Amino acid sequence: MTNKSTARAHTNIALIKYWGKANQELIIPTNDSLSLTLDQFYTDTTVEFDANLNGDQLVLNNQLITGKMATKTSAFLDLIRNMASIDTPAKITSINHVPTAAGLASSASAFAALAAAGSDAAGLALSRTELSRLARRGSGSATRSIFGGFAEWIAGDSDANSYAQPFQENVTMDIQMLTVVVDATEKKIGSRAGMQHALSTSPFFKTWVTESAKDLVTIKEAIKRADFATIGEIAENNALQMHAINLSAKPGFTYFNGATIQLLNIVQELRQQGIPAYATMDAGPNVKIISQSTDTETISNAIKSVFPTVTLEVAKPGPGISFLN
Amino acid sequence: MTNKSTARAHTNIALIKYWGKANQELIIPTNDSLSLTLDQFYTDTTVEFDANLNGDQLVLNNQLITGKMATKTSAFLDLIRNMASIDTPAKITSINHVPTAAGLASSASAFAALAAAGSDAAGLALSRTELSRLARRGSGSATRSIFGGFAEWIAGDSDANSYAQPFQENVTMDIQMLTVVVDATEKKIGSRAGMQHALSTSPFFKTWVTESAKDLVTIKEAIKRADFATIGEIAENNALQMHAINLSAKPGFTYFNGATIQLLNIVQELRQQGIPAYATMDAGPNVKIISQSTDTETISNAIKSVFPTVTLEVAKPGPGISFLN
Repeated sequence: MTNKSTARAHTNIALIKYWGKANQELIIPTNDSLSLTLDQFYTDTTVEFDANLNGDQLVLNNQLITGKMATKTSAFLDLIRNMASIDTPAKITSINHVPTAAGLASSASAFAALAAAGSDAAGLALSRTELSRLARRGSGSATRSIFGGFAEWIAGDSDANSYAQPFQENVTMDIQMLTVVVDATEKKIGSRAGMQHALSTSPFFKTWVTESAKDLVTIKEAIKRADFATIGEIAENNALQMHAINLSAKPGFTYFNGATIQLLNIVQELRQQGIPAYATMDAGPNVKIISQSTDTETISNAIKSVFPTVTLEVAKPGPGISFLN
Repeated sequence: MTNKSTARAHTNIALIKYWGKANQELIIPTNDSLSLTLDQFYTDTTVEFDANLNGDQLVLNNQLITGKMATKTSAFLDLIRNMASIDTPAKITSINHVPTAAGLASSASAFAALAAAGSDAAGLALSRTELSRLARRGSGSATRSIFGGFAEWIAGDSDANSYAQPFQENVTMDIQMLTVVVDATEKKIGSRAGMQHALSTSPFFKTWVTESAKDLVTIKEAIKRADFATIGEIAENNALQMHAINLSAKPGFTYFNGATIQLLNIVQELRQQGIPAYATMDAGPNVKIISQSTDTETISNAIKSVFPTVTLEVAKPGPGISFLN
């Protein structure tokens, strides 16, 4: 068996959000979700099992990492070691092309790449479905990053039946995410803590689950007919409802900052001018503008007029997992 | 009969919010609400019926007003003229000691004062319950401004049974609203339009109504035992849920701006330091901090460290309607 493998996984942004776990240990979500994998943000990870190591060694962006993130990575590799019946330590080398922990889903590409490289290095020949189940154990959103384009995570109710599947892997319609990074610092409330607090205390949570199920049906139909405006409307509304859930928790909290609200206003004004632009936000203040390539300049100019120095990145539909061996 | 009367009404801030009308024409709300009338913000209004006038004349803050506000005032006076079986035009002179239309409930004191002065000038000797019903027709929140201290608006289901009543008019506990005016400009989405959009389109609205009913029971018990922390917790949570409802509407919207979120964070940090401070927000970005007089300086300093030039006003429980004749 080869004991070394390198995989690339792209991050994904959910159009129908994953927000709430029915099973915290196994990361079984309360609802199905749907995402778009992006070409611009990805993680390259090499896993090499080496019996000569004293223990696992994590090098992220050329820095040796210890502490919580290293512990979590080792715990994830233990899942792979258990599957492969080995107990060899590993060196994990990862380059992350996503701003860490600022609501840009860096953990999605990180755990998808780790699942792929780790399982391959351990000699496991996992199917994409099996990879999706495995990636899920590291981070819920990683479940979907195994696949390219539009991917759907079927919540299921057990480890065996909770995984993503491609909904439309080759996206031919004009759709992109214009990412506005207004804040690349670590978020104060992690998504794991945030969603569980919302689930446990928001009186609106149950309705959120049933609404998301309806949104999923509608957006899938809209994707099939390449109906950009409906995709955007549903996605923006679903995202705002997720954030409404947080505000309605006890105590309430928000990932928004002032720039988030200014950007929501800009997006709304663009729509009033006839530019189809829709916002989605995850567990951080940054706004991803669901838009079309023909409107990139107009949207960028509108943003730059308010935030002259902000970083804008345009991401198109990206591919699923790949090996760089 | 006297044909001239001057009344003073104080504004009130709801601890359990009024947000949604079951009957738009009669302003029958979807849920009961509870407020604290404030001593610092009030409106003095003189109504003089004068057969020599060509039509109603509205002078607000020494300025002759025409347009929408004048039309609305005349329509309200028509209710009084109908009750009194007169058709005499009136001169209305009003001085508003509340920043207009920035979520500080200026319409509450305005219509409460207008109801009192107008009905008295028309020779109607209305009870406070009748005044409350009348004020309601001008602006929902005005219903409660007839009474001092903690007032409860019983939603009812008709013009006859939808009115406020005192819950605790003489407030002896230490409770105040520290108002932070970060923006005194007119709000973009009026409360009337905002609440109806939320009611019509938010999937969480029904739950909001049932949650508010529970909050009301809890806060009334807390007021009875002068349990400041519980009053604050319930009020902040109720307010955030109202704003969550707006975010979850289709399309979603918010009255928050960046300063609102910064102030919510300051309030949360103060609580972590052991200072009992709670936030409430209405149809505007301004934050009212429910607090105790002993903490005024600490809270003010915390705010001034982030907003050095902001206007702070401390309001204590205020009285109900009074006549200045």
